[in-house]
Amino acid sequence: MSQRALAILSGGQDSTTCLFWALKRFGTNHVEALTFDYDQRHRIELHSARAVAALVNVPHTILPINTFAAIGGNALTDPGIAPSSSDTPSALPNTFVPGRNLVFLTFAGAFAYQRGITHLVAGMAQTDYSGYPDCRENTLETLMQAINLGMETEFTLHTPLMHATKKETVLLAQNLGALKSMALTHTCYEGLRPPCGTCPACRLRAKGFTEAGISDPLLDSPIPQIIQPIS
Amino acid sequence: MSQRALAILSGGQDSTTCLFWALKRFGTNHVEALTFDYDQRHRIELHSARAVAALVNVPHTILPINTFAAIGGNALTDPGIAPSSSDTPSALPNTFVPGRNLVFLTFAGAFAYQRGITHLVAGMAQTDYSGYPDCRENTLETLMQAINLGMETEFTLHTPLMHATKKETVLLAQNLGALKSMALTHTCYEGLRPPCGTCPACRLRAKGFTEAGISDPLLDSPIPQIIQPIS
Repeated sequence: MSQRALAILSGGQDSTTCLFWALKRFGTNHVEALTFDYDQRHRIELHSARAVAALVNVPHTILPINTFAAIGGNALTDPGIAPSSSDTPSALPNTFVPGRNLVFLTFAGAFAYQRGITHLVAGMAQTDYSGYPDCRENTLETLMQAINLGMETEFTLHTPLMHATKKETVLLAQNLGALKSMALTHTCYEGLRPPCGTCPACRLRAKGFTEAGISDPLLDSPIPQIIQPIS
Repeated sequence: MSQRALAILSGGQDSTTCLFWALKRFGTNHVEALTFDYDQRHRIELHSARAVAALVNVPHTILPINTFAAIGGNALTDPGIAPSSSDTPSALPNTFVPGRNLVFLTFAGAFAYQRGITHLVAGMAQTDYSGYPDCRENTLETLMQAINLGMETEFTLHTPLMHATKKETVLLAQNLGALKSMALTHTCYEGLRPPCGTCPACRLRAKGFTEAGISDPLLDSPIPQIIQPIS
């Protein structure tokens, strides 16, 4: 039986690149994409994910998670808190949603468990990781041990971007033929399209494209019809 | 500053005993209770949790998780699947919800993170554990490492019943003065009150009380007014 993979797709640049990586690694008919609707402030992320999955023609599921918004206290799901960058290197930014990637991977495991899928692909990177400790390799390796013990499974987690800089991520996207799809992705913390260009997420993305010497298709393209307005 | 604890309260016998354990260990005003509404088949569990928390007068939060039901495929959240015991010792029962305890503990961590609570208390037991691998000590220890890495926290997880038999759990409840509260708890997989007495959960509970030589207050009492009918 062929090996099958589940790619976690947020609709952003990194997870889209990883979806293309998964298609190359596992083959066109052996990849599914999974997106989480966790009541994130910017619904446009979901539309981007939907558009990217449609572009590459993979089965795509959006799973709801209503718990983070119920817990509150972070800028990504709490309408009362504005995203801000932290000027204190030791402090976590207020866009940190405690446990987000831990929960995403555990639900991805539960979803894959039901389908007999044994490979998980995700876009976390510890280089340029915005200060999120749940993107680090040792966190994710430890979590996968817990998931495999807790579900009696042998999932393999692939994080192709873990040690890549943003420049290397852009170059990988180019090599994988994923560059055009970047016009569909969403990165901006302000939820704007065209992107604001000044939030930490926009600046990190711009840095990668600039250093790679490639212009960002998101900035060059008109807004594709496939992307819906923010609801 | 006094140490504070968050007790995960399902409304069952074990988590209720653990809530009493937490009250003794951390003090009356230093414990909160957290229950998950994960669209479980039997809403009576939530009413039991509410009643137990009210009885001991601790702050109580019910957090929603709509994801397990969206994933489906298990007897506890999928209305199309009836709970059945497995006669094959090596197979997991169909009441196994993949990732349930992993997700519960991660969300409990996220909830405690926001409140500055550093101790988590939970009722998992690897003795008599119904075949659930996410109740085992090594699973939970590994998960707590992942949570502490991923949230940059130093949570301590307390599982007072991890190595207790059901008999020992009943005797502990007696020692902690928790026996009367057992009349409020819910265990039956069939969602019945009075309990069916024949499902695996009922039989395990009955075994514990029988071996402890104590009659189960749940069977002796009329249905308390505080427990609402199943909605």
